[in-house]
Order: sequence, then C-alpha cells, then structure tokens
Amino acid sequence: MFIGIDLGGTKTKIGIVNEEGLLTSSISIDTEASLGYETVMKNIKAAIAGLLKQNNLIIDDIASIGMGVPGLIDYEKGEIIYCTNLSWYNVDASGYLRKHFDVPVYLENDATVAAYAESLFGSTKEAASSVFLTLGTGIGGGIITDNKIIRGSHGAASEIGHMVIGENFYDCNCGRNGCFETFASATAMIKYAMHRLEDPSIESSLRKKADKLEAKDIFDQASKGDKLAQEIVNRTAKYLAIGIVNIYNILDPELIAIGGGVSKAGKAFFDLVSSMAGSMTLSKHVKYARIVPAELGNDAGIVGAAFLGMQA
Amino acid sequence: MFIGIDLGGTKTKIGIVNEEGLLTSSISIDTEASLGYETVMKNIKAAIAGLLKQNNLIIDDIASIGMGVPGLIDYEKGEIIYCTNLSWYNVDASGYLRKHFDVPVYLENDATVAAYAESLFGSTKEAASSVFLTLGTGIGGGIITDNKIIRGSHGAASEIGHMVIGENFYDCNCGRNGCFETFASATAMIKYAMHRLEDPSIESSLRKKADKLEAKDIFDQASKGDKLAQEIVNRTAKYLAIGIVNIYNILDPELIAIGGGVSKAGKAFFDLVSSMAGSMTLSKHVKYARIVPAELGNDAGIVGAAFLGMQA
Repeated sequence: MFIGIDLGGTKTKIGIVNEEGLLTSSISIDTEASLGYETVMKNIKAAIAGLLKQNNLIIDDIASIGMGVPGLIDYEKGEIIYCTNLSWYNVDASGYLRKHFDVPVYLENDATVAAYAESLFGSTKEAASSVFLTLGTGIGGGIITDNKIIRGSHGAASEIGHMVIGENFYDCNCGRNGCFETFASATAMIKYAMHRLEDPSIESSLRKKADKLEAKDIFDQASKGDKLAQEIVNRTAKYLAIGIVNIYNILDPELIAIGGGVSKAGKAFFDLVSSMAGSMTLSKHVKYARIVPAELGNDAGIVGAAFLGMQA
Repeated sequence: MFIGIDLGGTKTKIGIVNEEGLLTSSISIDTEASLGYETVMKNIKAAIAGLLKQNNLIIDDIASIGMGVPGLIDYEKGEIIYCTNLSWYNVDASGYLRKHFDVPVYLENDATVAAYAESLFGSTKEAASSVFLTLGTGIGGGIITDNKIIRGSHGAASEIGHMVIGENFYDCNCGRNGCFETFASATAMIKYAMHRLEDPSIESSLRKKADKLEAKDIFDQASKGDKLAQEIVNRTAKYLAIGIVNIYNILDPELIAIGGGVSKAGKAFFDLVSSMAGSMTLSKHVKYARIVPAELGNDAGIVGAAFLGMQA
C-alpha cells in the first residue's frame, strides 16, 4: 500500500492506494494555509495517522508516501523551494513526514503528478512519451518521456503555461506578456470576454453574466449561437493549438492529454483544437500526437502522488 | 574507428574518427544533389572506400557509420522521411550504406548531431541535459536529456526554430507566422534590417550594404555606434532570450549552447542575451541554464555522426 497526498491551497486530500492504483480510502481536510507551514504539516500528519488507524493499518504496511505540491521542488534535497499559494519558501516537507513516519517520502509538482497518474492509469497509459496540460486558472503541465517524469536540471521544467506564444492585451501574473496561459486557460477566456464586452456596441448573452462569468458559460452560449462566445471559443482553440504545435515541434510526444475545467468543453472543442493543430504542423509527412481529454478525475492527484516512489 | 558523414545540400564531409573523438582523416566532396539520390549515395560510397584505402584500413576496422542529415528521420526503419534541400522523400540511406559496408549504419538530424557532438566533446560536455541552438539561415535545435538524444515519438522533436514566440512582420518558410527563426536567425536579422530600411528617413550605414547585407555587418555596425544596427541587435537578443526562456520553462536544461553564424557575434552579444533571459525567468529562486557559445567548429557534424552508435 502507498499513501498519496494532494496538497492544495484550500483543501488537502490524502488517500491510501493499493498496488493496482485503486484508492481504497481517502480523506479531505482543510489545509489551513493561513496558519502556516507547521500547522499544515501537523494537520497532514494527523490525517495520515487517522487514515491508517481507520483502515487497521500500521506504517509498516505502507511502502512510501508521495505528495503533490502546487510549487517548485528541489529534488536533490527533497525540499519545497516555493509554493506561492501557501507562502512556503524552502521547507523540508519530506523530512517532516519522514521524521513521523519511517518510510520514503517523495515530493512532486502537482501538475506533473496529474500527468504521471494519467500516464499510469488514464488517458496516456498507452504512451511512453506524453504531455499533459491542465487548463484552469492557469495552465499547468507535465512531461513524461520514455515513462520518466521530466523535471529539468533545477526542478523547473514543464512550466508550459509560461511559454510565450504571442502578444496579448494583458500581462501574465508572472509579469511577462504573451504566456500560453493568458491565451488558453479558463481565466484567459473570461478576461478576453470582459475585454470584448468593454465595447458597448457588442450584443451578447454573456453580458448578463458579466461579473460572475465562467468558461462554462462561454462554451454554453457558443453552442447556442452567441457570436461573441463563438469568437472567444475559436480564439481559445487557436492559441491552444499554437501551444500544442510548439510542443509537437519541441518534444513530439505520442499523446497530448488535456485536463482541467476547459477539458470538459466536449468533443466539438477537442475536434476544433485538433483540426487547427493539424493545419499548423511543420511536416505533413508526420502523424503527430493525438489530443485527448484526461480520463482521471479528482483522485488523480492522490493516486499519482502515491506512485511517485516508482520514479525514484 | 568510426566513420562520420555530414550530408549537406552543396558539400558532404566524410571522416574517420577514433575512439577519443579525434578526426584522423577527412574529405569534402560535392554532394551533387541535383543528380538525384542514387548519385549522391554513390559519391558517398566511393568517398568512404577512398578514405579507407588512403588510411590503409578495411571495413572490419570500422565499428559503425553515422550520417547527419538536413531532414527528418524514421528511426525505426532507419530511413530518411524527407530532406528538403536534396528533394529526398522516404529513401533508405542506411540500407544503401549497409549493403556496401557490412557495419551498423545510423542516421540523425544534422542539428541534433551537432548538439550531440557538443555534449560529447564541446561546450556542453559537463552537462547531462542540454539544448543546442544553431542560428544561421534558420534555427536548428538539438535536445539532450540525461545524456540521451531526444528524438520524439515520430522523429520530429527539437524543431525549435518553428516554436511560435510572437507575431512578426513576415511569414516563416514553413507557412506560419511567429516562428522563433523568423526573429532570431541570421536571416531574420537581415530581413528586419531591410524592412526598417524601407523607411527612407532612417539614416544608417547599413544602407550602403543593402543588397548583400550579412548578419556580421549588422553586428559590426552596431559596435561602431550605428543606431539602426543597435536596434536590430537588441531586437535579436530580446527574441533569442524569449525563445531561450521558453526552453527554460519547458525543459530546464543544465546548459544552452549557441552555434552557427550569429554565435560568432562575441561576448557582448552573449552577455546581452544572458541578461535579457535572466530578467524574463519565471522563478527568481532558480539558477537557470547558462547560455554558452558552441565550441566545436565545422568538424562537429562528422564527429557527432561518427558516435551515433553510442545512442543506439
């Protein structure tokens, strides 16, 4: 058995996963990020202890603990370099857990954990080399090459959301202009909608939702024939295709999987993105990666984290 | 001993390389691309036979033959998928050589061969993971991760010159707009100069060279204080930095090496690019790859090709 932890800014999910990748028991706790690193780790420690007890297990039944983290990892030291959402800098989270539970502990970036879970049990399990993109508030990425996670020489690889792909009307949170995630995330769709709605001559059903507009509304209204919504969906698909074709031209993976909110847009959107990407490929003699929706749901973070020991 | 072949559109270089990577004997022949595939391969075959004889060697003294090709390879079949400069499509060049010389034969993209040679004996030999960019007519790329060449699932990886990084005033040869090589190759510098010189109010010493302007002239005039030349050098450095930081954010290599004509611009240009890239990094907590000039000269193509068997 393995323990997987999916650390989030608000909620943290912890689960026991068996050798087949089945989540046999899990718990979701409040992260209580505002109370600081020590409290968060104490909460996680207590939750693990509770989960073991509840399942009549002892720590000797657990082969390893893995944790997915919304931040950057120093893999040599086993430390978290930083974790913006939680205001953590240089904390030895694996050392903390190892002190309380005498098993190997592994840390990994959360988007990479999701990519890894998909490659083990989900949409990319047939592929030795795949790229996973999660489209939500931003764009997270994970790269698997020959069944190995690509972490980079300083743990900073697969930050695909910050690949510059064009010029945009607003700057990215990172301070630069043109990042992939400012064109093709859920946030990007909403920002572009609000930008276009500044023009009072534009008639659109999106205007009613204005302040609480979500990406889902834009997809819904596009399918109902709203012109502005359709324009936004087309723009999103175009830039998603540009980013994907950049990945073709750099990594040429076997499969590209898309997860996160935008991935629930349905087959029509995937067909549109695939067709646009197909028209942008460098060589017509190459059959590039298919673009597929992610298959694993919310548990991917726990399951992927639980299996991190296989990458050590 | 190994044989390395550097196939070019005009000249083809063939050499004998020893176990230490030393080129012991070489010859340069006219490729005669216009006479077609069979003639080109016959020329290469004859040159190899001549080279062996001249060095009192027989084919049994040769461990393997490797060839760098300006095109795309099907690694499973050992065939060239296409080679635009030579108008070759789906030709079994390794089968041809193997038929005449009873040794293993390996094919590889030429920019990747140069990257590999640098990683074995040149600028990136200290690094397990590196990216090589050659800036000339276009931008060629080679990616080494954990001492392994990254070829992609369909042999189409490391086409970094066709990563879209912005919007440009002219389209790329590939048919798209915004490719890295339209911003940061030698050709890109010249095209931008000509574009700016269309404005008759601009005074610049580059105007005299106009029709036969080279990247070197632009660097020379910039160092002499020509305002337009300086503007072009700054623009080139900026976009080169954008492309390099994209590579940081995707692959996070240990080192990035730059070869080709533009790399001869000197230390001031490398310092400018490094400083610009440093200001664009995603995390200030990470010490990203240094940007270094390639070290190997024209022989890199032969030497890298000769050692391709080590990657098989």
